[in-house]
Amino acid sequence: MNLTKLQEWLQSSDNDVAYISNPTTIAYFTGYDMEPHERIFALLAFKDQDPFVFVPALNVEEAKNSAWNGDVYGYLDSENPWEIIADKVKGRTKDYQKWALEKNNLSVSHYQLIHAQFPDANFDGDVSNFVAKIRLYKTPEEIKQLQAAGREADFAFQIGFDAIKNGVTERYIAGQIEYQLKVQKGVMHESFETIVQAGANAANPHLGPTMNKVKPNELVLFDLGTMHNGYASDSSRTVAYGEPSAKEKEIYEIDREAQQAAIEAVRPGMTASELDSVARDIITKAGYGEYFIHRLGHGIGKEVHEYPSIVQGNDLIIEEGMCFSIEPGIYIPNVAGVRIEDCGVVTKNGYEPFTHTSKELKILPL
Amino acid sequence: MNLTKLQEWLQSSDNDVAYISNPTTIAYFTGYDMEPHERIFALLAFKDQDPFVFVPALNVEEAKNSAWNGDVYGYLDSENPWEIIADKVKGRTKDYQKWALEKNNLSVSHYQLIHAQFPDANFDGDVSNFVAKIRLYKTPEEIKQLQAAGREADFAFQIGFDAIKNGVTERYIAGQIEYQLKVQKGVMHESFETIVQAGANAANPHLGPTMNKVKPNELVLFDLGTMHNGYASDSSRTVAYGEPSAKEKEIYEIDREAQQAAIEAVRPGMTASELDSVARDIITKAGYGEYFIHRLGHGIGKEVHEYPSIVQGNDLIIEEGMCFSIEPGIYIPNVAGVRIEDCGVVTKNGYEPFTHTSKELKILPL
Repeated sequence: MNLTKLQEWLQSSDNDVAYISNPTTIAYFTGYDMEPHERIFALLAFKDQDPFVFVPALNVEEAKNSAWNGDVYGYLDSENPWEIIADKVKGRTKDYQKWALEKNNLSVSHYQLIHAQFPDANFDGDVSNFVAKIRLYKTPEEIKQLQAAGREADFAFQIGFDAIKNGVTERYIAGQIEYQLKVQKGVMHESFETIVQAGANAANPHLGPTMNKVKPNELVLFDLGTMHNGYASDSSRTVAYGEPSAKEKEIYEIDREAQQAAIEAVRPGMTASELDSVARDIITKAGYGEYFIHRLGHGIGKEVHEYPSIVQGNDLIIEEGMCFSIEPGIYIPNVAGVRIEDCGVVTKNGYEPFTHTSKELKILPL
Repeated sequence: MNLTKLQEWLQSSDNDVAYISNPTTIAYFTGYDMEPHERIFALLAFKDQDPFVFVPALNVEEAKNSAWNGDVYGYLDSENPWEIIADKVKGRTKDYQKWALEKNNLSVSHYQLIHAQFPDANFDGDVSNFVAKIRLYKTPEEIKQLQAAGREADFAFQIGFDAIKNGVTERYIAGQIEYQLKVQKGVMHESFETIVQAGANAANPHLGPTMNKVKPNELVLFDLGTMHNGYASDSSRTVAYGEPSAKEKEIYEIDREAQQAAIEAVRPGMTASELDSVARDIITKAGYGEYFIHRLGHGIGKEVHEYPSIVQGNDLIIEEGMCFSIEPGIYIPNVAGVRIEDCGVVTKNGYEPFTHTSKELKILPL
């Protein structure tokens, strides 16, 4: 069905061929999920011919046995993949004058190599925006997968909270989470590196888990997610190990208020920028605006970060079926960091989170 | 020192500015290792000015506290990163007419966005080949890291062999390997998804570990690696769980002979293609040439696949200090697969593997 839409887009945008190079986009259209590393993996779609998938020889059998039912062509490492793609395209159609590339993914080198096979063709077309737009609206089936991924994230928090003890490292806690996800839930891939940050480390929002040990009476920030049938979860919680300081409690409660207010404010018809402001205004009025150093949220689906971007200045209208995170944070360098994040789906009247771990400040006993 | 070479390359190639966009390349030059997801992360180098690093605001503190000692500039999600980069470049120098991009990494979209900031500049330059070439030759310090990563791979094999029992799944074995690497060795990242393939699954060289159960009297193929201080390991072993068939023993011994012959044949001065032929000829003469469906090997370093490519038709001369895999494989669809792989470094007279797990056919008791 998505491939039909792609073909319709080719017709309406007056393009002959779409060259899809992002493995996630290929999985979205074909159901075949593969990471080609530096080898060539592409989906070629045509305005009035059947599409085909092009893979390394290594992956031909796997592709044929996958959810993809169309043609599969392969190339050996010793062959020139661009020549083979050109042959297959020319064998399929005489219409290859106008190409649409996935320009937000395709490297300049690959663009030049495919262009060299069709020197007289026009390569101005860009299918990136169409792909981003079609992926903005999740189907009920996609939402089910995102909810299931969210339940795995809730499970992961519980493992993480239980693993906190005096003297264990951030990395140990992250390791426990990933191992228990694997053996208890069959989760083979996290959607990104599990983040566990104790004390001042949490003021660097993307710092990976270090060998630093968790100490009594500090905040511990978790940011984690899984991949479930090709769909991502992403959620953050901040808990206290022992008694937090008055300052830490203060920023926790401000962040929590901002996050809750934003969740309750979501309505189809508002802009992404307006939603960002709901949380940002609360944090700014409380005097911590300068410490909220990122956007309110990002879309989620087959990738952990996709559209829409919930950010100041983005006039995109929020609509039913869009899925994104709401994750205000307050980061005070060398002191502490707090972030509370859920992902969820926009409904007719609001927003339904995919994660349900409590957001009341949890104080773990020493 | 590498940055000095980059500056010298800019001068000798008559370019003013290099825009480095591959996070691994940035780590290579700066010592600062970061995954920006969809945000912008770049190293800007100049023919006669100091370079700077450009990161999301989220990562400014981390970058300043990293091994990188030069300037760091950041941008907020609500800002246009391309305008800020352009401002910083113009603040640094009047010479920004000729740009060299990392074209094998930079997306067409980003190319167009940076070009739009400098519409009159020439963007023909490509720094990709220079980067690939400088990274071909590993320093003694880099080789130490690769050797340490290799020792972690040897450890991982032992965990994997010990985990094989009747009825356990491929995924369980992979999970055991990754968990024990984390808790016993502090390995936070594998260099790629740990591959465990039992029986006929091994005939699909890149198939991930499934929920299929290991059965008695079949071959089990492992392909795994770790990241150690930013350097990768990658190694494969195939073992028998119970008694293999005569056919399986036959292909195992042919593959082993081909791998050993290639290891012993490595000499500075031969071509990559010649080395590929050493192994390929043995497998072909034994009648299994059509089942060896990939190149003999790939370079390894900060990335698990980099240059040189040890493949038919590649006339690149092998030289001391190059590091690559030697990994012939025989894959018989619906029957079994065998691959034996070591990575190693080219020495004055030969090749020193980074992994040392025995390659005699290991028959694990039922």
